[in-house]
Amino acid sequence: MIKLYNLPRSGNCYKIRLLLALLDLEHEIIDIDAKAGENTTAEFLRLNPRGQLPVLDDDGEVLWDSTAILVYLADRYGGDDWLPRDSLGLARVMQWLALEQNEGRYGLARARAHALGNPNAFARDANPEECRALAMTALQVLEERLAANDWLAADQVTIADIACYPYVAMAGEGNIDIAPFAAVQTWTRRIAKLPRYLPLP
Amino acid sequence: MIKLYNLPRSGNCYKIRLLLALLDLEHEIIDIDAKAGENTTAEFLRLNPRGQLPVLDDDGEVLWDSTAILVYLADRYGGDDWLPRDSLGLARVMQWLALEQNEGRYGLARARAHALGNPNAFARDANPEECRALAMTALQVLEERLAANDWLAADQVTIADIACYPYVAMAGEGNIDIAPFAAVQTWTRRIAKLPRYLPLP
Repeated sequence: MIKLYNLPRSGNCYKIRLLLALLDLEHEIIDIDAKAGENTTAEFLRLNPRGQLPVLDDDGEVLWDSTAILVYLADRYGGDDWLPRDSLGLARVMQWLALEQNEGRYGLARARAHALGNPNAFARDANPEECRALAMTALQVLEERLAANDWLAADQVTIADIACYPYVAMAGEGNIDIAPFAAVQTWTRRIAKLPRYLPLP
Repeated sequence: MIKLYNLPRSGNCYKIRLLLALLDLEHEIIDIDAKAGENTTAEFLRLNPRGQLPVLDDDGEVLWDSTAILVYLADRYGGDDWLPRDSLGLARVMQWLALEQNEGRYGLARARAHALGNPNAFARDANPEECRALAMTALQVLEERLAANDWLAADQVTIADIACYPYVAMAGEGNIDIAPFAAVQTWTRRIAKLPRYLPLP
């Protein structure tokens, strides 16, 4: 049985819930109360020494980090559809996962966490100007790709799209306007039309 | 022919040079002068819209991002040795690549870039306290794993070790002392003994 340790409003946790829904995988969700410090207990740190969500437990195999979990679920349960298995195809997915973990996380996601007043150092210590600059880089690089392609890493949807989608689609909550990025906007609507799509948190 | 666009002092570029050396792969190195802005020309941005190094060109297939390049080289040229191909093994490597891209990059690597006075916003706008806190998280998580295991993601060296190694081994240049992390130090010496190892930049 797949168990997901989850924060309901987290874009990183939503990535996993979205892929679980798209893959139509049965799973149990265990909500963690970060405000009550449930992610910093000794018990939780045994699951994830970074103290972050999401964490996945698949029949006793525990994985932390949203990117690692996306790769695992796609590879284990998604056939070749969500994560290409040739070297170049795999690496093209990795490029976008890296953009999401760098400019995405420290730009789009951090701007949102700061604006929402999340109770952690990642949100509190954010430099809004830096977040905006990184977010703009992310959006420009995404726009350039999506102006000429429907999907980020291949001719079909992959976990590259699932990883980058949430914090782009929720950018407005961090006061980042994606209206100037027409191809990015069209792509968010394309994702929202996927069968078994799960609405944003 | 493999061509690597390279910054000589960059830990991210060194990751690729190290793996190329360990895999004994013939390659050409093209040094880029970031101080002269060679990474922001229209020509370079066609190779990498993020304007970062390293970039790899393997017979015309161009890849940006050090993580994506490590995955590509390991998968294409490393057999099953450097990147496990089962879902769980692959995901366990991804966990450490993610730690490196997050706490590693914004902690260890950024502290070093700031201390070295690198001429870009990533270095200039660094918050030294935040860098130190992220670096400590990275080192603690690495120490916990390495206290009980020789390598990060498997029973043998993988690209997880190659990705995390440079900015840990060069932490002192960012005024981060790794002396309290005994298992991490032993691991850096283990890596430096690998056949065809390439010295730190």
